Amino acid sequence: MTVLVKTRVHCARTFVGGTTLRASAARPTGKPTKYEQLALEIVGLIEAGTYRPGDRLPSVRQLRSQRHLSITTALQAYYWLENQGWVEARPQSGYYVRSNLPSGLPEPEISSPGLDPAHVSIHELVMMVLQDTQKPHLTQLGAAIPNPDLLPSEKLGRILASLARRADPATNQYDIPPGCEALRVQVAQRAVASGCNLTPADIVTTSGCMEAMQLSLRATCRPGDTVAIESPTYFGILQSLEALGLRALEIPTHPRDGLSLEALRFAIDHTPVRACLITSNFNNPLGSLTPEDKKKELVALLSKKDIPLIDNDISGEIYFTEHRPGVAKAYDRKGMVLLCSSFSKDLAPGYRVGWVAPGRYKSTVEWLKYTTNIGAAMLPQLAIAEFLASAGYDHHLRRIRRVYARHVAQMAQAVMRSFPEGTRVTRPQGGFVLWVQMPESVDSLMLYRSALRSGITITPGHIFSASQRYRNFIRLNAAFWSPREERAIERLGELINAGLR
Amino acid sequence: MTVLVKTRVHCARTFVGGTTLRASAARPTGKPTKYEQLALEIVGLIEAGTYRPGDRLPSVRQLRSQRHLSITTALQAYYWLENQGWVEARPQSGYYVRSNLPSGLPEPEISSPGLDPAHVSIHELVMMVLQDTQKPHLTQLGAAIPNPDLLPSEKLGRILASLARRADPATNQYDIPPGCEALRVQVAQRAVASGCNLTPADIVTTSGCMEAMQLSLRATCRPGDTVAIESPTYFGILQSLEALGLRALEIPTHPRDGLSLEALRFAIDHTPVRACLITSNFNNPLGSLTPEDKKKELVALLSKKDIPLIDNDISGEIYFTEHRPGVAKAYDRKGMVLLCSSFSKDLAPGYRVGWVAPGRYKSTVEWLKYTTNIGAAMLPQLAIAEFLASAGYDHHLRRIRRVYARHVAQMAQAVMRSFPEGTRVTRPQGGFVLWVQMPESVDSLMLYRSALRSGITITPGHIFSASQRYRNFIRLNAAFWSPREERAIERLGELINAGLR
Repeated sequence: MTVLVKTRVHCARTFVGGTTLRASAARPTGKPTKYEQLALEIVGLIEAGTYRPGDRLPSVRQLRSQRHLSITTALQAYYWLENQGWVEARPQSGYYVRSNLPSGLPEPEISSPGLDPAHVSIHELVMMVLQDTQKPHLTQLGAAIPNPDLLPSEKLGRILASLARRADPATNQYDIPPGCEALRVQVAQRAVASGCNLTPADIVTTSGCMEAMQLSLRATCRPGDTVAIESPTYFGILQSLEALGLRALEIPTHPRDGLSLEALRFAIDHTPVRACLITSNFNNPLGSLTPEDKKKELVALLSKKDIPLIDNDISGEIYFTEHRPGVAKAYDRKGMVLLCSSFSKDLAPGYRVGWVAPGRYKSTVEWLKYTTNIGAAMLPQLAIAEFLASAGYDHHLRRIRRVYARHVAQMAQAVMRSFPEGTRVTRPQGGFVLWVQMPESVDSLMLYRSALRSGITITPGHIFSASQRYRNFIRLNAAFWSPREERAIERLGELINAGLR
Repeated sequence: MTVLVKTRVHCARTFVGGTTLRASAARPTGKPTKYEQLALEIVGLIEAGTYRPGDRLPSVRQLRSQRHLSITTALQAYYWLENQGWVEARPQSGYYVRSNLPSGLPEPEISSPGLDPAHVSIHELVMMVLQDTQKPHLTQLGAAIPNPDLLPSEKLGRILASLARRADPATNQYDIPPGCEALRVQVAQRAVASGCNLTPADIVTTSGCMEAMQLSLRATCRPGDTVAIESPTYFGILQSLEALGLRALEIPTHPRDGLSLEALRFAIDHTPVRACLITSNFNNPLGSLTPEDKKKELVALLSKKDIPLIDNDISGEIYFTEHRPGVAKAYDRKGMVLLCSSFSKDLAPGYRVGWVAPGRYKSTVEWLKYTTNIGAAMLPQLAIAEFLASAGYDHHLRRIRRVYARHVAQMAQAVMRSFPEGTRVTRPQGGFVLWVQMPESVDSLMLYRSALRSGITITPGHIFSASQRYRNFIRLNAAFWSPREERAIERLGELINAGLR
């Protein structure tokens, strides 16, 4: 009997390591007894990581009531699993997955990492670029994530801990839009520095800036509508437009001073543009800064045609200029500018705290926020609000502005040293990314692939355009700049030069 | 001069208390000097709550650089504000809003609470019902919020505090879909009790169950598509469908055993239904429980037509039956069931932690989650995961099941005592809400309005249907049941009886 079952288990293992994990269902021949079936399922769940070494397994009584099995069947299954070395019984407590599973057992297959980026869709490529950020062994020049060493995570953690320990019941209730008042007060106060007189009542809190932009797009557009955007623009914006069934109209954008107003004027005269979405302060990937008079002119141009402007100010505080640049909202007289931002680039990407000042679209944005996820998590919002109220935020910002400006400049120099002749690189006025134009014959997707093999992430240029332009461009994140990243730039240079030969 | 300015300020106050707050722009006559204009703006920001008593105001230097004003202008403005009693100077520190603003100053207008529900749209009504939950002076029989005294907020707070204090850098980074692994492991383990063999890789974490459902709808439908739903159903589902441009097809639903399969079969034979969304365990507002064999039949029926089933299991753990009811996903052979849930009803509405097991739609759901808000907040997910891993969760669940079952039964009895003859009330098998059918002539919207005047919230029936049926129904939340709520039920009975006379 044991031998027979063992054979069956080996049969099972070949597929429980795969995707179905329902050992009993996928078993090729014969009908296992009830207890064998149960044991095989439990093996499948252990192999798939649902139950891990040391985890307690369901009790015999639970199995009886949940699976309508007899106590005997459940016990037989556990006896067999114990006998085979999968589980151990602990007196008065139940059955546990063995901490040291017997060697020789096949390990579960790891999830498919080997996708060939030449054969994946843009969606998959974007998700790969993002998921790579969570692999600490890679040199992170790809996604535009801030350097964790430059985030005040400990200070924020202490504030959050103290709020959580108080356990005020109000912090464990739904946060109905417009959301956390303490945060809205702080955001309104800081808006003064960007030339905006906002009141707390003008603001809706969101789960990050991406959500602020998506709610703004949904409040102003219907599926099929056309949205004018900068080109190049952050790939997340393009993905968001696609997910909402919106069309992207790419407007030429200068790497220093942003969107071309002439091109925009021409576009809106010839195409029914429903909204315009830009990053007027430090476009990602360009680092461009739309000058104040141009912002004013842009708002006037769009307002005249009743076209709402969605302005993404996520990096507005990370300026290398003398003063904090203004925001387009400062010139808004008709409530047509939706100002979006968050604290994900300068404070806490993991807290998911953002906001939107949606002007005349406020009640629609509140309603859409409710239908999306009711409201944002309360404690992270309160922690950010408390940090903003302290002098620590400005102190912190002064530091990261200095450091990121240096990192960006040093990385740009390294690129020019190592990359082939003909390479051009932006001179960002804020943020922490560089946009690099390489010789025409360089394919950034092939470079992405070979860089990954060398343990380096980059972002291929063509995901920054709906029409997949920018095939010989890459975006580089300078936030982590150190000798390791410097070597990575040299290595990228070698890979490009090898490809050109 | 002082007198002149004072008059101007009084002019200004009449509108800075309103919505525009741009005193200078809205000022009816004459052109104020630069410092008067600045002072009026600051008064406006103080009256609107952007700066509150004790808050530090922007420094003279900041005003100079942000507003391109001279130091003299900024100082003149602050001198005047100090003179008028609005601000106080603190040596070496700057200007602050006075903690005790002089009496006699007009207070800012409060935000408009007095909307007449008879003349508001369904959207506005829904938002009012939700916003009422945040007013502690009201007796909360309206929204389906859990009783804060029955949430383990202190324990969760202690776990969250300890995680936050550790400030592991990984907890302050973007949580890329599928999201927090520790949480997915716990969810997979608990799914076993509902008859589901899920692995951590089958799950995507979300910001609550509403987001899980919206992502599921977006993954399976396009705008204009038809979705079959229970009738009545949670108004949030209807609002979500509307926000996505989807049509609701309302299927008759039995108050005890859920959706009519006969009606559904007829519907899908005659209408192109793109998806079906139900709450098979404890429909809100009915409290109905779809029996296991019916769940199985439902999945088979829909699978045969390749129609995905979105199952909202948010209240699945709050059962009054002997065992944990199963979920439709347990019968899913084709990956066509998208199982949605969260911890908002039993643990932590304020943490916004939910999940979806999207079957074959997983990669689409992940991509949509990214375009919605990148990922969920990390620390709240880790805190919930740690609580789930402890024995405390099951202990807590046993307690709330007992308490809510008692509350629901006692409230039902009180309703039958106080409400007029002809009233019918559901016998929920889980959750904590009651659905009350009153005599035909009772208008629940009028009752909502008069109840609010008596300090009691209820949810009017007609927002539980896209076609605004259920005009003589109300939903009552039994979660808070105590003598105060008992008196509220008596008062509701009086109001109804008075209306009937």
